[in-house]
Amino acid sequence: MAGDMTTKDGRPFDRAQLESLMKRRLFYTPSFDIYGGVSGLYDYGPPGCALTNNIVDIWRKHFVLKENMLEVDCTMLTPYEVLKTSGHVDKFADWMCKDPKTGEIFRADHLVEEVLESRLKGDKEARGEKVEEKEEDPKKKKKKVKNIAAVKLEDAVVQEYEEILAKIDNYNGEELGLLMKKYDIKNPATNGELLPPVAFNLMFQTSIGPSSNLPGYLRPETAQGQFLNFAKLLEFNQQSMPFASASIGKSFRNEISPRAGLLRVREFLMAEIEHFVDPEGGKKHPFFEEVKDVELELLNRDVQLAGKTHVETTKIGKAVKTGLVDNETLGYFLARIQLFLLRIGADPKKIRFRQHMANEMAHYAADCWDAELLTSYGWIECVGCADRSAYDLSVHMKKTGAPLMVREPRKEPLKIEEWQVDIDKKKFGPKFKKDGKTVEAAIESLTQDLREKLSLDLEKEGKIVVDVPSVGSGKVEVPKELIAIEKRTRVENVREYTPNVIEPSFGIGRLVYALCEHSYWARAEDEARGVLSFPPTVAPTKVLIVPLSSHGDFKPFVRTLSNALQDIGISSRVDDSGASIGKRYARNDELGTPLGITIDFQSVKDNTFTLRDRDSTKQVRSSLDKICKAISSLVNGTEQWSDVAARLPAFEGQDVD
Amino acid sequence: MAGDMTTKDGRPFDRAQLESLMKRRLFYTPSFDIYGGVSGLYDYGPPGCALTNNIVDIWRKHFVLKENMLEVDCTMLTPYEVLKTSGHVDKFADWMCKDPKTGEIFRADHLVEEVLESRLKGDKEARGEKVEEKEEDPKKKKKKVKNIAAVKLEDAVVQEYEEILAKIDNYNGEELGLLMKKYDIKNPATNGELLPPVAFNLMFQTSIGPSSNLPGYLRPETAQGQFLNFAKLLEFNQQSMPFASASIGKSFRNEISPRAGLLRVREFLMAEIEHFVDPEGGKKHPFFEEVKDVELELLNRDVQLAGKTHVETTKIGKAVKTGLVDNETLGYFLARIQLFLLRIGADPKKIRFRQHMANEMAHYAADCWDAELLTSYGWIECVGCADRSAYDLSVHMKKTGAPLMVREPRKEPLKIEEWQVDIDKKKFGPKFKKDGKTVEAAIESLTQDLREKLSLDLEKEGKIVVDVPSVGSGKVEVPKELIAIEKRTRVENVREYTPNVIEPSFGIGRLVYALCEHSYWARAEDEARGVLSFPPTVAPTKVLIVPLSSHGDFKPFVRTLSNALQDIGISSRVDDSGASIGKRYARNDELGTPLGITIDFQSVKDNTFTLRDRDSTKQVRSSLDKICKAISSLVNGTEQWSDVAARLPAFEGQDVD
Repeated sequence: MAGDMTTKDGRPFDRAQLESLMKRRLFYTPSFDIYGGVSGLYDYGPPGCALTNNIVDIWRKHFVLKENMLEVDCTMLTPYEVLKTSGHVDKFADWMCKDPKTGEIFRADHLVEEVLESRLKGDKEARGEKVEEKEEDPKKKKKKVKNIAAVKLEDAVVQEYEEILAKIDNYNGEELGLLMKKYDIKNPATNGELLPPVAFNLMFQTSIGPSSNLPGYLRPETAQGQFLNFAKLLEFNQQSMPFASASIGKSFRNEISPRAGLLRVREFLMAEIEHFVDPEGGKKHPFFEEVKDVELELLNRDVQLAGKTHVETTKIGKAVKTGLVDNETLGYFLARIQLFLLRIGADPKKIRFRQHMANEMAHYAADCWDAELLTSYGWIECVGCADRSAYDLSVHMKKTGAPLMVREPRKEPLKIEEWQVDIDKKKFGPKFKKDGKTVEAAIESLTQDLREKLSLDLEKEGKIVVDVPSVGSGKVEVPKELIAIEKRTRVENVREYTPNVIEPSFGIGRLVYALCEHSYWARAEDEARGVLSFPPTVAPTKVLIVPLSSHGDFKPFVRTLSNALQDIGISSRVDDSGASIGKRYARNDELGTPLGITIDFQSVKDNTFTLRDRDSTKQVRSSLDKICKAISSLVNGTEQWSDVAARLPAFEGQDVD
Repeated sequence: MAGDMTTKDGRPFDRAQLESLMKRRLFYTPSFDIYGGVSGLYDYGPPGCALTNNIVDIWRKHFVLKENMLEVDCTMLTPYEVLKTSGHVDKFADWMCKDPKTGEIFRADHLVEEVLESRLKGDKEARGEKVEEKEEDPKKKKKKVKNIAAVKLEDAVVQEYEEILAKIDNYNGEELGLLMKKYDIKNPATNGELLPPVAFNLMFQTSIGPSSNLPGYLRPETAQGQFLNFAKLLEFNQQSMPFASASIGKSFRNEISPRAGLLRVREFLMAEIEHFVDPEGGKKHPFFEEVKDVELELLNRDVQLAGKTHVETTKIGKAVKTGLVDNETLGYFLARIQLFLLRIGADPKKIRFRQHMANEMAHYAADCWDAELLTSYGWIECVGCADRSAYDLSVHMKKTGAPLMVREPRKEPLKIEEWQVDIDKKKFGPKFKKDGKTVEAAIESLTQDLREKLSLDLEKEGKIVVDVPSVGSGKVEVPKELIAIEKRTRVENVREYTPNVIEPSFGIGRLVYALCEHSYWARAEDEARGVLSFPPTVAPTKVLIVPLSSHGDFKPFVRTLSNALQDIGISSRVDDSGASIGKRYARNDELGTPLGITIDFQSVKDNTFTLRDRDSTKQVRSSLDKICKAISSLVNGTEQWSDVAARLPAFEGQDVD
């Protein structure tokens, strides 16, 4: 797939060139570089940081402001107990194998996959077949298997390998260990024996407070903090459902061996929404009508299970109607995600929505779609949109007893016929003594069916026998003097339910990287230099101010322009270096600056300036006031360059090189 | 002091009332509350989060945009080596004592302070003197010493205690241990013996990667990441000095026993600027002229050393001229900090700048002023402005060899007369064998004075004797055949220097809390409910939309208003609950919402609405368009309510209760 990738203008894409640009222009840089760096940790320099901030800003407007979501900011430090309850302590892990001799550590599934793939490749070579390069997978950028031996395999073995590879995400540690034994998978570099796979939890551990008695982790997602505050948020929302909370912040995953640049890192910015919705009534969304005609490229579960990857262009309204997308709320967010991706400048031809297969869903998810962006690393999950059902609220409620649920008055009272148990507490205590509470609890927890059956026993035999494992023989006899069981009607005026959660979760760093690939191209006349055609709203810096030369006459104009732009909240940079205007613009093409103002000798005479469009390199000339207005509307997205060019006189006099 | 604190309208301030409001309205809430909470960790709910975001946004405009600072975003995970070099591993610690019986842990300096203070108080009681309540200190919100015994002390002892208390910040662990022994300081609750003080490092520790072989910490400040990237940032800035980098992000301190709510927490948002400046030439700042007339309340070092706290109102231009503030750059930032604090709504009467005394400066600081805000906890450091000199860049450069310095062409080449040593390497090696390099290095590092002296020896005695501790007897003889020492002139065309760093560092959480205290008051007619008079730019939500009742006719207007405000990027909330309009406005007074729009029956008739000012409760009535324009200019700070009230017709018809 990498070979097929094209730049924004349709030429072959060269990743090395883009990554070199991004590092040279300080979009990002390895953290602690002068100390040798730490893999999976990157710093964002000024353009990367501004790009990130602008995307976050648009995200906040597009989602939080639009729907009055309740934004919260919870701590990253999280005590053990919370993540034990959420399931992360037990399940948020990868399997790793250690080479006891070299100390090297391998991620078990990646190793099995890579070794079997290399053997299949060797087999093809031995059979004289053409070896096609498979779609490159970001998980395997640095191959462990360096040399592929052309060894023919038996046909049955080839089939076995292919079947294993098809479900590689489906094995647990023990199974991976068995595969490694069975197929003699060792350290590819040394052929040394590896220890069996052990679970490696991906959370960073620390301890909180001076006495080291409160173990904690850095959060792996922002979601848990939102769940824990559910009751308070519902109260803040004046008990009105549905509603959403949102959070933007860093999360942490201690990847076993992070690679693929910004795509798999140990510390990353997330933006997550938790939309709380009544599980009854089809999970409707009040604004679904507004988006029902948005078209998405959907890659559904069945197509993938058939080993295919073709997408279907579908209006979200239809996808929900046919049940392909489970419910309106999920559908609403898929459409809103699509609109967001377009708004920040993703290439519509490089967006698809892929449904998770059953075996790849996280431990809490009931259904899940990923918004994937096509990059030179393949299709990359940039946004997950999961239906987490009532999982999280339920487990935290069960653990803490906090009322993480909704209580709402019923329009019509609900009448329930049920078997009720009455215990005569005065006699109960003296009879069972210290076991009283336990026996009582066992009786209270009897199902309706059992209660009905026991009511007959009581009538027939004057007593019942109840299973109470921890008391005496495990069977407890209760005579009818102590208990009554009757069918009665109970009226419920209040409905209690645990909301379901639809969670759109955005990996901002991945979006930033994918966006750079989607925005990248090079001018035919200067292929060595790239251009990053970010939309003005997203671009790190909006305007480059370029005085024609270092002539003193230009200086006051530089200051005037800077201040005027600052006053309207627009970021500009001045480049008054000695380089030619063409070189200075080329530098800013690489920074993705959409607009340039040149101060030339005519400016000094008549106070007019030229405004240049990055993508077309066309220029117009006008007064400060009109130039500022044009910039403002371009940056706010209310006008396109074509509108400005139609309004203001074109300028072609100045030679920019 | 707490007793003297007043609300915005000059009445006595009741902290419990404000804190109850802030928790009730979800400005903040203890993190993991349903799990019992973790001290020193707080989550921000919707209003707190919006308030924080707005302050950060203003900060970015006021500092980053204004001066084209290079904003970066570096990781929080930081390897051991970096923080070892910066001095944090060794010095970023507090002293703690453990009670071996109860397991309780005390911060040693706080304990000594508290016990001695309580004894002094007991002494006063015993002498029948009036015991004044001292200014409350946030470090001691929960007193360890519960009961004060009225025991008279000898006069000499009183004096000793007072002297110790005056310099309590000045003792190291050993000294604190001696004090505890000498004055018999034990666990106040049980009178149990405590173990001697041990250093407790305040950084959270973790390990990076699967093999646990890379120890790391969560950063205690954002500064280090900025220093490590200095060379790249200078390059990005096209080698131009001075310049500043900036960073906004979370930092972490594992406080021994955090208290005082948002003021002393374990995870907090910082905004830090590192302004890099040439140490020569007086550390001028290019924009100093613009701020020189800004007046600050300065509390200088000498006044404090004399045991006083009176401030002097001084123009920053004068303070720099007299040398009270060391240099222009430091002065520039103090003034800019003052302007920022006013812009976000801090009470000018509750701001002062306090110079650090020599013994309280951080291990890296050369000079430091704190911007302190007066709160019910006393004067609280919210912004530190330190001159970190060349400390950080120097230590990282020394450790890594990376060129964290500036090289600039000299306007005039510099001619330096110096004693140069020539070594005959061909003969040197054979003579000294394995010690050759060591002897050579020892010679290279000789001072100019020594070189001059040795040149005479060489001439007189035909040899020199050099101290090389690790070789032979420690004295090495070098004959003149191997060495020459001559005075020559060297010409330097390039100047190399390590910049100094001026660091304004903002604790955003503390600002948020102090701002809430400064903005708080209550209406005379409804003292139970508070009002938070944030400036519109800072307020969490800008507009409350209130339909007079739940009448269906109002619904479309609610939607129209919401959308119109959204389109101009202004956050609003609708309150269509059944409560009276007065109650609904009162709720939003507590949330600090500055503006309210009421939809009433006249709106349905003529499409006009009333706009209400939170502080005066005055209303005007106008069309949607004019109301939106007024809101926009109020929120952007280009107009005050008085301007709007002068422009639009007043409205007094509707009764709001």
